[in-house]
Amino acid sequence: MNEMKKVSLVVIRRLPRYYRYLTELKESGVVRISSKALAEKMRVTASQIRQDLNCFGGFGQQGYGYNVSQLQTAIGDILGLNESHTTIIIGAGNLGRAIANYGSFEKRGYKLIGIFDNNKDLIGQEINKIKVSHIDTLEEFFQKQKPDIAILTIPKEVAVEIAQKLTQLGVRGIWNFSNMDLHMSVEGVEIENVHLSDSLMTLSYKIGQGVKK
Amino acid sequence: MNEMKKVSLVVIRRLPRYYRYLTELKESGVVRISSKALAEKMRVTASQIRQDLNCFGGFGQQGYGYNVSQLQTAIGDILGLNESHTTIIIGAGNLGRAIANYGSFEKRGYKLIGIFDNNKDLIGQEINKIKVSHIDTLEEFFQKQKPDIAILTIPKEVAVEIAQKLTQLGVRGIWNFSNMDLHMSVEGVEIENVHLSDSLMTLSYKIGQGVKK
Repeated sequence: MNEMKKVSLVVIRRLPRYYRYLTELKESGVVRISSKALAEKMRVTASQIRQDLNCFGGFGQQGYGYNVSQLQTAIGDILGLNESHTTIIIGAGNLGRAIANYGSFEKRGYKLIGIFDNNKDLIGQEINKIKVSHIDTLEEFFQKQKPDIAILTIPKEVAVEIAQKLTQLGVRGIWNFSNMDLHMSVEGVEIENVHLSDSLMTLSYKIGQGVKK
Repeated sequence: MNEMKKVSLVVIRRLPRYYRYLTELKESGVVRISSKALAEKMRVTASQIRQDLNCFGGFGQQGYGYNVSQLQTAIGDILGLNESHTTIIIGAGNLGRAIANYGSFEKRGYKLIGIFDNNKDLIGQEINKIKVSHIDTLEEFFQKQKPDIAILTIPKEVAVEIAQKLTQLGVRGIWNFSNMDLHMSVEGVEIENVHLSDSLMTLSYKIGQGVKK
């Protein structure tokens, strides 16, 4: 565990991708895979894979490749996917609905237990069997249940206020889609800022470069 | 231009973030900013900023800081944001709708010109003033208009088939939310695979580590 703390976030950010590929391999019945074959599938180098996985003590045996199921479980453990996390969604618009209905989340241990909005027309509506509650009932909700993760699919104008409130209420993680970076330095609260448009901008860069080739 | 080709994709992927911060600074009336102040705002090191921006020839003048508006325009040029890109969305579910209604895309030069689905109940519905068309009319659509970018918000089971079709029809970029990596090596077609859940997994890693601190 102590060893793991030294692992850079750059490597950690690559683990979900390993996890996805290994899950697919496992589901299609692959028992063992060499770093070379995994590398080809993932379009990275075999040495990158060996280096990344060595950060955690290494899972492969020289010449035998990786045990797919074992490696998938181990990476899932590192990522905390093998324990259950309760989540709430703040913002019942299209993006909030898309996330609420995303089946894979539940499979990976994320359990949606509440959806909140301030739009009266949405209160009481059911999304994936969860009733939308008014944002004003958030405090009351936290008194009964302590969600681990809050997913913010709200406009950036209200993001800081809501994030501060969630932090006070004791949330442990914020997955922030509000299109502004949240930087709260509160002990025990972790934040992931997501900017969908960043990868679209990267795509238009690639298109531009492609044309000039 | 030749110089730019050497810039690694790692640096390119950081540019949208610079672009976002500079746009905000510009909108709030900031004319000039030092690399130190920009670094503090963005929570990176000043030397990282200088290094990144030097890849493109450098925009700052020693001791004077960066001209915000000039730098924003220059990065926008690199990212191809100052030219217009036509886009279509394949998949009119919640995520497709969220993207169709996302105001910032239009501001950055992405013009939505079509939405397609195979669900008969959705055909003819209007999303952000665009009527949903049947996926079977895609070919016909391309004969009249040539969208630059296709946004895939469809299940992974049909992603490869649709991506191949789009490639044949001459699309230049695919922004893929289908939750499986597409690797097409067709000259002139660029792909960005987006996996929303990757950052959620990173978040649960951070939460786990936080607890063990």
